[in-house]
Amino acid sequence: MTTADATGWIGDPATALRVAEGFDLAAVDPDATPAYRGSKADGVADLAAEAPKLDELQERLFAASRSEATDQAVLLVLQAMDSAGKGGIVRHVVGSVDPQGVMLTAFKKPTPEELAHDFLWRIERRLPEPGFIGVFDRSHYEDVLIGRVRALAPADEIERRYDAINDFEARVVASGTRIVKVMLHISHAEQGARLMERLDRPDKHWKYNPGDVDERALWPDYMAAYQTVFERTSTAVAPWHVVPANRKWYARLAVQRLLVDALEAVNPQWPPATFDVALEKERLAATMPS
Amino acid sequence: MTTADATGWIGDPATALRVAEGFDLAAVDPDATPAYRGSKADGVADLAAEAPKLDELQERLFAASRSEATDQAVLLVLQAMDSAGKGGIVRHVVGSVDPQGVMLTAFKKPTPEELAHDFLWRIERRLPEPGFIGVFDRSHYEDVLIGRVRALAPADEIERRYDAINDFEARVVASGTRIVKVMLHISHAEQGARLMERLDRPDKHWKYNPGDVDERALWPDYMAAYQTVFERTSTAVAPWHVVPANRKWYARLAVQRLLVDALEAVNPQWPPATFDVALEKERLAATMPS
Repeated sequence: MTTADATGWIGDPATALRVAEGFDLAAVDPDATPAYRGSKADGVADLAAEAPKLDELQERLFAASRSEATDQAVLLVLQAMDSAGKGGIVRHVVGSVDPQGVMLTAFKKPTPEELAHDFLWRIERRLPEPGFIGVFDRSHYEDVLIGRVRALAPADEIERRYDAINDFEARVVASGTRIVKVMLHISHAEQGARLMERLDRPDKHWKYNPGDVDERALWPDYMAAYQTVFERTSTAVAPWHVVPANRKWYARLAVQRLLVDALEAVNPQWPPATFDVALEKERLAATMPS
Repeated sequence: MTTADATGWIGDPATALRVAEGFDLAAVDPDATPAYRGSKADGVADLAAEAPKLDELQERLFAASRSEATDQAVLLVLQAMDSAGKGGIVRHVVGSVDPQGVMLTAFKKPTPEELAHDFLWRIERRLPEPGFIGVFDRSHYEDVLIGRVRALAPADEIERRYDAINDFEARVVASGTRIVKVMLHISHAEQGARLMERLDRPDKHWKYNPGDVDERALWPDYMAAYQTVFERTSTAVAPWHVVPANRKWYARLAVQRLLVDALEAVNPQWPPATFDVALEKERLAATMPS
């Protein structure tokens, strides 16, 4: 199915996965492969085939910013339950482009210093500079996910945050940063199997934390919190995409495509020379033996 | 020549490339491939074959740090004349490991804030955390390279810096960070050809700066400044390696090997579980339908 011209995509994942009016997380099948018709082997081949395109787009974006020809950037926000595959996205999708153009942040439990500020303070500090692809492995959404489920802040503060996030993201978009928001969606059963694998393999023990089972016990609460996030923060300028992620190969392929789409919308061009090319060739030639 | 067991290496590059007593930069052939006997094709194959080893070592280092089983890190310091291939090292060597475990910094001309502090201030802030591979694309050595050639600081301040660097690096090493210092060494003619290519190709114009020719005119001064750096700062705890870099494939292969050597010396192990594995399996199993 995969040739130079044809891929397994039969639709646009940006449309198929977008959270729109009436979205219901419970209706999303984590095993599905929306807008894609192909096997795992097709998907792996398509991922590899598309990597050079993502790579060139990223380099053009970076190049344009170095010449101050653009103030644009792209920010990928990754949210998910434990073991849903955020790390695999970083590794296999983001990892295929030049590390010099990527600004990656894994947000952990806030530090005392971070807690002393508004919840968006640490986020703002890690926004990508022009020309960069920023990646948030967890994000400000934790403050309305675990924040809500665990009641880490008063209810009215949690409530305030949805609008604060929308205002913040609108500002970020207006400043030239395109935001791609992705929730990787696995099933409760799949999470169980993945956590068990971490317990079965000594080389995976470091990825396991007893707290993972405590969070898992709150699965329905988290799903409800995600549903609220989607209803309140999937805006026209920064929509959410829910990516079925039981099949890792599909999730990677879909996120790659969302990134390519975002970069194609930016449409970065090689910047024009900011110097006289002919003159510089003469100057350089004069330094070389004839 | 390249099989699962045999590579083109016929010696240890860490030894062959190390700056030792009596080192003379002028005697290094930028076209050479020390300790390696093989073609470009062999080198490319060896680079790919070794990547999984670097990858696993990096993951082990990262894993150990997450469980606080280690305070160790690795810092790769890259210095070179323009166009020598630092970017290619970042892309093709560092880029082969998980971006989550890499902390990359490209040091530019110091900002006013940075200039208001000691020259090591901005460097210290970007040291890798435990478990990380830090990469410096340019470094504190700029302050005794362009700093010296362009007389950006008084002579006695430049003079002071060599010892300050040695003291600083000794502290860094003592704190658990292994430092791999690399100068990529190209010839004056090769630089001319590479800069001309940047002028010939519109998609490379962004990498060119008229100042590059100005710096090139000072080539002998830079070589002298590097020679002094090697004499003053190639210490037992943090030795320099001069990597002939006219052949990009060799430079990448050699730096990959230096990184693998450094990580093998750290010898990171999968950390033991910090929890009761059997108990956690029971807890997790209780969450899954039978």
